Amino acid sequence: MFSIVAQANEWRAIDPSNAVLLTLPHGKVVIELAPQFSPNHVKQFTELARSGHYNNAKFYRVIDGFVAQGGPKDGSAVDKAVPLLAFEGEFSTDKNFEFTQVQTNDMFVEQTGFKDGFALGYDSKEQKAWMLHCPGVIAMARQTGADTATSHFYITIGQATRYLDRLMTVFGRVVYGMDNVQTIKRTAVIDGDIAVEENDYTSIISMQLMSDVPVKERINIEVAKTDTDDYRKKLHDRRIRENAFFFKKPPPVLDICQTPVQSRIVK
Amino acid sequence: MFSIVAQANEWRAIDPSNAVLLTLPHGKVVIELAPQFSPNHVKQFTELARSGHYNNAKFYRVIDGFVAQGGPKDGSAVDKAVPLLAFEGEFSTDKNFEFTQVQTNDMFVEQTGFKDGFALGYDSKEQKAWMLHCPGVIAMARQTGADTATSHFYITIGQATRYLDRLMTVFGRVVYGMDNVQTIKRTAVIDGDIAVEENDYTSIISMQLMSDVPVKERINIEVAKTDTDDYRKKLHDRRIRENAFFFKKPPPVLDICQTPVQSRIVK
Repeated sequence: MFSIVAQANEWRAIDPSNAVLLTLPHGKVVIELAPQFSPNHVKQFTELARSGHYNNAKFYRVIDGFVAQGGPKDGSAVDKAVPLLAFEGEFSTDKNFEFTQVQTNDMFVEQTGFKDGFALGYDSKEQKAWMLHCPGVIAMARQTGADTATSHFYITIGQATRYLDRLMTVFGRVVYGMDNVQTIKRTAVIDGDIAVEENDYTSIISMQLMSDVPVKERINIEVAKTDTDDYRKKLHDRRIRENAFFFKKPPPVLDICQTPVQSRIVK
Repeated sequence: MFSIVAQANEWRAIDPSNAVLLTLPHGKVVIELAPQFSPNHVKQFTELARSGHYNNAKFYRVIDGFVAQGGPKDGSAVDKAVPLLAFEGEFSTDKNFEFTQVQTNDMFVEQTGFKDGFALGYDSKEQKAWMLHCPGVIAMARQTGADTATSHFYITIGQATRYLDRLMTVFGRVVYGMDNVQTIKRTAVIDGDIAVEENDYTSIISMQLMSDVPVKERINIEVAKTDTDDYRKKLHDRRIRENAFFFKKPPPVLDICQTPVQSRIVK
């Protein structure tokens, strides 16, 4: 009743050279990368994945409602060998910047909207845009400095951490298997609870570029196009909530992070 | 770095007669009930839990990023025997209504804030308040009519479904074991994926009032008080983000559903 389902002609196939297959002990996850917004982060992440950098790494910082963070052992040779990345948590636009606007009174930003299925913030005065920290995005962790990311990454698993927008570089989003991300073992417990053993941390079996995966083992994903009249109408309908289930109408606003962009598997 | 940790004298013990222990095959969950806001829903839910109504029921509608919904088999004798509940998704306040205000420019409501650790919306003109659909709340499902809830409930497991505020009756929130809620088997898959068998749906082993649980098996939870100067200072600090990690400061606003209220276990 609440979903936005795209019609047959309203889908975009994800290029397998622009997607990553994350294999966990309990299931698979597909992440679509966003080189159009964070080119150097995608390039480094892709090269690292292809080199086997993430294979057998662990999710060592997993906080329910916040993030699942993984990477190689801190200070290990493989960890220290990775070059620093310059911040790409926002990008400049021109006056003709176009996206499918969702909202203009978001609490954090002048405008929100979708471009290529990714949730963006946009400030028309600054002429800047950035990927938003909605649930299920992948971003690089970093030290205190803006330009200190290397290979450690996190996937957001709770309410959107919008206060991290423009402070961390988001570079993709989960398009399949978010349930498997949610099943990653939490490493943090509340006071008084039994601590989690490091041996129980969830391992990354492999992180592969989808185009490197044998064709028969690929998960081929299509995502709903977000720049069509059809999708705009769905946004409108979701905003208006004409269904009788809404016995009074909610405020006619959309939280972009609660506005789905559908995926499907194609053979 | 991002958490709000209450001091030793800033905790409130949850009354075991006001908490529910949900035992799942893979772990335990504690829910604090909110009779101060939704008295009849809490009363019916509590009586049903004590009667064993939910034992062996299944989570039959579990949609990633949305809700995990459970209850007895539709149309079964035990299902049909439950009386209808009148809507309690908002309540009237007087002019002296007090809560710990969090934000005044939330997209959905004039004011947000905490009362007794629960996230509320408040409209001073209408003099109405209501529990918000933040992640980890429990609410009653219903049919189309406002007053059609019975015993089927859902727990929110994704980005806050704020468009359901004032439309559904929230009556508590998870204060322990949200990771176990997130591990409930999803029943919905995307097009092209393998359907989930009903046999694989997650069962409720038991739903017990905590005061009915043998003392040795109880999980005794304290939650941070949200009406103290200490907590207000923590809200302030979280809004201002003085830590150097924030190399530029995010907008000084707080999404109440991304503002934690800590729990801890006491023996």
